[in-house]
Amino acid sequence: MRTLKVDLGDRSYPIHIGPGLLPEVGRLCREAGFPLQSPLLIVTDSEVGPLYLDRVASSLADEGFRTVVHTIPSGEASKSLENFEAIMTTAITGGLDRSSAVLALGGGVVGDLAGFVAASYMRGIAFVQLPTTVLAHDSSVGGKVAINHPLAKNMIGAFHQPKMVVYDLDALKTLPKRQILSGLAEVVKQGLMIDPEFVTWLEEHAEGLVALRPDLIGEALEHSCAIKVGVVTQDEREFGIRAILNLGHTLGHAIEAVGGYGTFLHGEAISIGMAGSALLAVKLGRDRAIYTDTIRVLKAFGLPTVLPDRYSEDELIEAMMHDKKFKQGKVTFILPESIGSVSIVEGIEESAVREVIGQLKKGDSPW
Amino acid sequence: MRTLKVDLGDRSYPIHIGPGLLPEVGRLCREAGFPLQSPLLIVTDSEVGPLYLDRVASSLADEGFRTVVHTIPSGEASKSLENFEAIMTTAITGGLDRSSAVLALGGGVVGDLAGFVAASYMRGIAFVQLPTTVLAHDSSVGGKVAINHPLAKNMIGAFHQPKMVVYDLDALKTLPKRQILSGLAEVVKQGLMIDPEFVTWLEEHAEGLVALRPDLIGEALEHSCAIKVGVVTQDEREFGIRAILNLGHTLGHAIEAVGGYGTFLHGEAISIGMAGSALLAVKLGRDRAIYTDTIRVLKAFGLPTVLPDRYSEDELIEAMMHDKKFKQGKVTFILPESIGSVSIVEGIEESAVREVIGQLKKGDSPW
Ligand SMILES: NC(=O)c1ccc[n+]([C@@H]2O[C@H](COP(=O)([O-])OP(=O)(O)OC[C@H]3O[C@@H](n4cnc5c(N)ncnc54)[C@H](O)[C@@H]3O)[C@@H](O)[C@H]2O)c1
Ligand SMILES: NC(=O)c1ccc[n+]([C@@H]2O[C@H](COP(=O)([O-])OP(=O)(O)OC[C@H]3O[C@@H](n4cnc5c(N)ncnc54)[C@H](O)[C@@H]3O)[C@@H](O)[C@H]2O)c1
Ligand SMILES: [Zn+2]
Ligand SMILES: [Zn+2]
Repeated sequence: MRTLKVDLGDRSYPIHIGPGLLPEVGRLCREAGFPLQSPLLIVTDSEVGPLYLDRVASSLADEGFRTVVHTIPSGEASKSLENFEAIMTTAITGGLDRSSAVLALGGGVVGDLAGFVAASYMRGIAFVQLPTTVLAHDSSVGGKVAINHPLAKNMIGAFHQPKMVVYDLDALKTLPKRQILSGLAEVVKQGLMIDPEFVTWLEEHAEGLVALRPDLIGEALEHSCAIKVGVVTQDEREFGIRAILNLGHTLGHAIEAVGGYGTFLHGEAISIGMAGSALLAVKLGRDRAIYTDTIRVLKAFGLPTVLPDRYSEDELIEAMMHDKKFKQGKVTFILPESIGSVSIVEGIEESAVREVIGQLKKGDSPW
Repeated sequence: MRTLKVDLGDRSYPIHIGPGLLPEVGRLCREAGFPLQSPLLIVTDSEVGPLYLDRVASSLADEGFRTVVHTIPSGEASKSLENFEAIMTTAITGGLDRSSAVLALGGGVVGDLAGFVAASYMRGIAFVQLPTTVLAHDSSVGGKVAINHPLAKNMIGAFHQPKMVVYDLDALKTLPKRQILSGLAEVVKQGLMIDPEFVTWLEEHAEGLVALRPDLIGEALEHSCAIKVGVVTQDEREFGIRAILNLGHTLGHAIEAVGGYGTFLHGEAISIGMAGSALLAVKLGRDRAIYTDTIRVLKAFGLPTVLPDRYSEDELIEAMMHDKKFKQGKVTFILPESIGSVSIVEGIEESAVREVIGQLKKGDSPW
């Protein structure tokens, strides 16, 4: 087990990464100081629960904790206000008090939803992330929690840092291939955002990473977490630099919303979004190699880079307008300056974005 | 206009109190630095809107702000997840961005609900309180925002400090008498909690206060706000001392939940709750005069002190168990030590609470 520390003053917390950690959750919760008298709520989903709930629940029971479990249907559509309310009901009837904690056992969907419950229940109780997907190495770090509004993704939420993240790499073994690739998209994003050597290393080891070779995937996820920690500790509430984490997300979120949540997976959508950001950068005069290199890396991971024809420009623009990056009438994009370096570009005109959307549909030779 | 300052580091804000302030809201928003490009959302209710929305909206328009309005039905039942979602929809379709603000024009219901919207929209945007009830002098200060769960009051919420409170005392003139009395219950509570001279002054001027004599009500509300500010700035997130503000509220919230939200008004319920706390204090060996003095002050304001027979002990105890003050199996009460002084008493047995509930039904001579 390796431990990264997220330094945020009195909201600091550890990220434990390694194999075999879910059976240690009980001990880690004891050591974190959660009182035995206050019940713990485990939130999980219909895929993850049958596979891993027992390990967590029995390790907690062994330490003397009482637990309440709430299982949501798997999938992005579950990040809804309906499930938020249903979990609140479970928390109340289960007797959770101000000293209780919510444990999120699953991917980013469970983490974001359970995290917003923890942020709002009695105005905020403790929260523990137990990520089980590759993608959730990203979503479980940094304290952003949210649910979707039918009109826009992650629109309702909070900043609520976990007390602890326990990332059991063994859990990844049951993850469907498509989910692995989707998760690797966020790993690639961390590299494209800020770390050129990491991008090179990732491209070299793409095959082994996709196959979840333990040494490789462990190193990649630890490094990717560390990159995110570095950004988040500089700017916890996204007043500035933290926005670079949204590389590929402005367009990516719009693709998710327009396609219907779950049609493209989150990582797939931001992969197309990163291709779009590269195109936009080139359109604004930056080097064409930014686009061709970006595409090559994404393809090494079998990720999509072309936007299907059926996605209407109007709908995508409309969805972007509802996004948090749309401010005072213009849109802000995170654009690559080169591979492994980005800048925040404000005030981009709608027409430029429309053009890029058109080019994204043309396949890999947009010019 | 008088201005109190709430000192909370980078979350500090002013409370402006005085007559004729609603038409100044536009100017005050400009001075607070809200950008004209970002629309403002005014949340109000079906009673307050027709009376005061024009003043606020036109003063904002005069300064060049764009506004979006959402009106909820008046009453406690509106502090619901349904209205929360509906306001979110208005915010999204109205184009609110991260630089926008939510303005709550109304009593504590509008303030608590709109405040939770502001806390959660895009993970938190600016919030302005425009209280229009006596009671809201309390609810608009301190940053507690929340909605009700059908099973328990204020269960879902956040700490989200406003950027500014603008308290126009002129608005109180249209307030129904019963609401005035209910609001004065929180004023009396601030006194009973921490300020014996204020209690004496309040009792002496009860008649003039109920009649809203401008000099008296202004002084009472300013002083009551100042008391709350003093407590909140010591303990913003209620880890300790702030809990004393809950004098009368453990039982009061249970009475509201069991009776159905709105049957007893909030101030009426906590008036009975304060009578109950006094009884419990006497039961634990404190001076009987605590009870008789408390009752006398509450009655001077025409507030209820007797619990109607139909409130079942079981249901009240059950509701208290869901309350935030119920922790690890026992209940915490704020109990008077004398008039104008309280202590936080943990670990009170259910049987003692049941006995007090019984006594509270017997009228004013429970022994
Ligand atoms: N909060 C943040 O900072 C942040 C960052 C990135 C993404 N996100 C959010 O994360 C979400 C995506 O997360 P995700 O990709 O983990 O999605 P997910 O939670 O839906 O998990 C993907 C799928 O894999 C299944 N699954 C999970 N773990 C498994 C396992 N070990 N074995 C077998 N199946 C398993 C799930 O049931 C689901 O069907 C999106 O909603 C996105 O907005 C949040
Ligand atoms: N957040 C906090 O710290 C805090 C503190 C105390 C109370 N509260 C909450 O505040 C709520 C009670 O607040 P309230 O008593 O102001 O209730 P309210 O908002 O329901 O207002 C009372 C009634 O008076 C009407 N009204 C409001 N202003 C008026 C005016 N100027 N003229 C005519 N009618 C007017 C309203 O439409 C409503 O019918 C409760 O939900 C309580 O939990 C919160
Ligand atoms: Zn992402
Ligand atoms: Zn109150």
